[in-house]
Amino acid sequence: MNNKFWSEAVKRTEPYVPGEQLNDPDITKLNTNENPYGPSPEVTEAVEAELKRKLHLYPPPGADQLQEEIARYYKLDQDHIFIGNGSDEVLAFSFMAFFEQNAKIRFPAITYSFYPVYAKLFNIPFEKIPLNHDFTIPVEGFSGAEGGVLIANPNAPTGLYLNIEAVEQIVRSNPDCVVIIDEAYIDFAPASAVSLVTRYPNLLIVQTMSKSRSLAGLRVGFAIGDAGLIEALNRIKDSFNSYTIDRLAIAGASAAVKDDRYFRETTEKIARTREWLIPEMKKRGFYVTPSHANFIFVSHEQLPAASLYHKLKQKKFLVRHFNKPEIENYLRITIGTGEQMTQFLKALDTINTSSGRRE
Amino acid sequence: MNNKFWSEAVKRTEPYVPGEQLNDPDITKLNTNENPYGPSPEVTEAVEAELKRKLHLYPPPGADQLQEEIARYYKLDQDHIFIGNGSDEVLAFSFMAFFEQNAKIRFPAITYSFYPVYAKLFNIPFEKIPLNHDFTIPVEGFSGAEGGVLIANPNAPTGLYLNIEAVEQIVRSNPDCVVIIDEAYIDFAPASAVSLVTRYPNLLIVQTMSKSRSLAGLRVGFAIGDAGLIEALNRIKDSFNSYTIDRLAIAGASAAVKDDRYFRETTEKIARTREWLIPEMKKRGFYVTPSHANFIFVSHEQLPAASLYHKLKQKKFLVRHFNKPEIENYLRITIGTGEQMTQFLKALDTINTSSGRRE
Repeated sequence: MNNKFWSEAVKRTEPYVPGEQLNDPDITKLNTNENPYGPSPEVTEAVEAELKRKLHLYPPPGADQLQEEIARYYKLDQDHIFIGNGSDEVLAFSFMAFFEQNAKIRFPAITYSFYPVYAKLFNIPFEKIPLNHDFTIPVEGFSGAEGGVLIANPNAPTGLYLNIEAVEQIVRSNPDCVVIIDEAYIDFAPASAVSLVTRYPNLLIVQTMSKSRSLAGLRVGFAIGDAGLIEALNRIKDSFNSYTIDRLAIAGASAAVKDDRYFRETTEKIARTREWLIPEMKKRGFYVTPSHANFIFVSHEQLPAASLYHKLKQKKFLVRHFNKPEIENYLRITIGTGEQMTQFLKALDTINTSSGRRE
Repeated sequence: MNNKFWSEAVKRTEPYVPGEQLNDPDITKLNTNENPYGPSPEVTEAVEAELKRKLHLYPPPGADQLQEEIARYYKLDQDHIFIGNGSDEVLAFSFMAFFEQNAKIRFPAITYSFYPVYAKLFNIPFEKIPLNHDFTIPVEGFSGAEGGVLIANPNAPTGLYLNIEAVEQIVRSNPDCVVIIDEAYIDFAPASAVSLVTRYPNLLIVQTMSKSRSLAGLRVGFAIGDAGLIEALNRIKDSFNSYTIDRLAIAGASAAVKDDRYFRETTEKIARTREWLIPEMKKRGFYVTPSHANFIFVSHEQLPAASLYHKLKQKKFLVRHFNKPEIENYLRITIGTGEQMTQFLKALDTINTSSGRRE
């Protein structure tokens, strides 16, 4: 389909296809890396309180209360924090704020598949840097980029984590362009690179409330960086949509950041489930990357991923299969609760056995 | 301030400055055209119910439930409806979807001041069409535009309404480009031009839930148009941010559209207050445009608008003054409740009297 009223930008787009959102209540959703524990009870209370207040009034344009909470959490000044309507919006604004149509940016060849989508939309040229054979990121491949660098850490869908020293090396080797580290899954990994932002004016960290804080339904993400970068994001936002975060989302997300205990308990539970699940999958003949995210990335020599995806779906477990040559024999499986993953293994065992290929 | 990491787009921006959001609880906010009655009680119930459900799961990317409600309300198919995070976001996406950097768009010289802000951000050339002396829109000035047309109807901050025949004339005289009618205030005016969308593939209507449905705090807007235009908006959105509307906003906004009775009662109340207020202002020596919006636009020969703005603020009434040559002697005043406007007139009378210039 095409239409004479479409701009060149529309014609260029190759829209992102998000993971399925099935309405079947019997299905266990392990396909979009949502958090099975749900948000802190404080979130519900905060939203209920806000609901009784001023829904007829515009929200504060900078989502001040939430900006303050995140600044406090990371012990930074507020002018280092930018709030967006999900980290996807923060990334879109970042493409507008820091990248140009005449300078190639770099991102890993296997990574969050939204990056090339943004690049097409904004007409930003890009180079995909091949990963090492074990899916690790070749640090040297990112030095001296022309237009910018964009790396997910932990990377998706591999789950692999780059340590702070490696991140710092990439940031230092690109003094003239912006390095964006997309830390959507960082709270399940050893450490954030936020500690570097006060030393590097070209480092932007992007995070989300959708994973570790279990608020995918509320649409809140944020960026942390030098005040100069944050001002650029604000200028873009204020030229695009002054009020991007609604009152209920500001209240709920602020409460989630405040409830540090719940946050720690639930993220630790997920990390423990992951550490238990990985050897269980290996026992069943799977290759499993050493993930530091809230998902695992697995493949099996005798069980083709595409067919396994369908068999699991029949058994009411929805996982994610990417139809891309390099990873077509892999599945990405979100870490659910311990109970969900026990049931998942049982379902897997039926498939594994019935296909007569169990090792 | 400037920064070597800023893109050309950031350097070009001249961000929109929204009306002040003061936290003083004693102030009567008549500056950003919010609705004093608050949302339907059904909104609160719907949000509370949704809050207990699945905040940890991503929302449906197209906000389906709300799309259905709006389609039903306007008796259109769902593929004619696009939902956005406030009508400002819908307008930003529309600039990306329908306008080009090599074709001038046209909008009125006096109108919503966000339009030139978008044009700067996206580098879209524009022509400002001067209004007639009485602030009415010269229909013929908009025929045969090169790149597109953008008109607020009723216009802001004048409140003046263009009838459907005039809108149709503009749409017909631009068969090769998109005409966007920004109907943010249409529910306080005689009739929407939505009835034209099935006949004109180049007409896009943009509306908001912030004014007539009293949900400025929830951030929901929408577009209505030919399926081809709506698909273009979806392609942009899905290349920018797949999930722009959160679960609570979808639930709340859907409930607001459903409660037609409350909607009619409150919008009619505001229209009645306006019809009572206009002659009251005239009695006090004000020139008042024949507004069809939820605000009035006034000036006074002996009371300079800038000083009146400050005097009203001292008396805890916040109105909007635009620092632009053509309208610097005007104030835009939101219609509050009858009681608020009675108090407003009392405050005005003190100022009017004490300045010794009452007629």
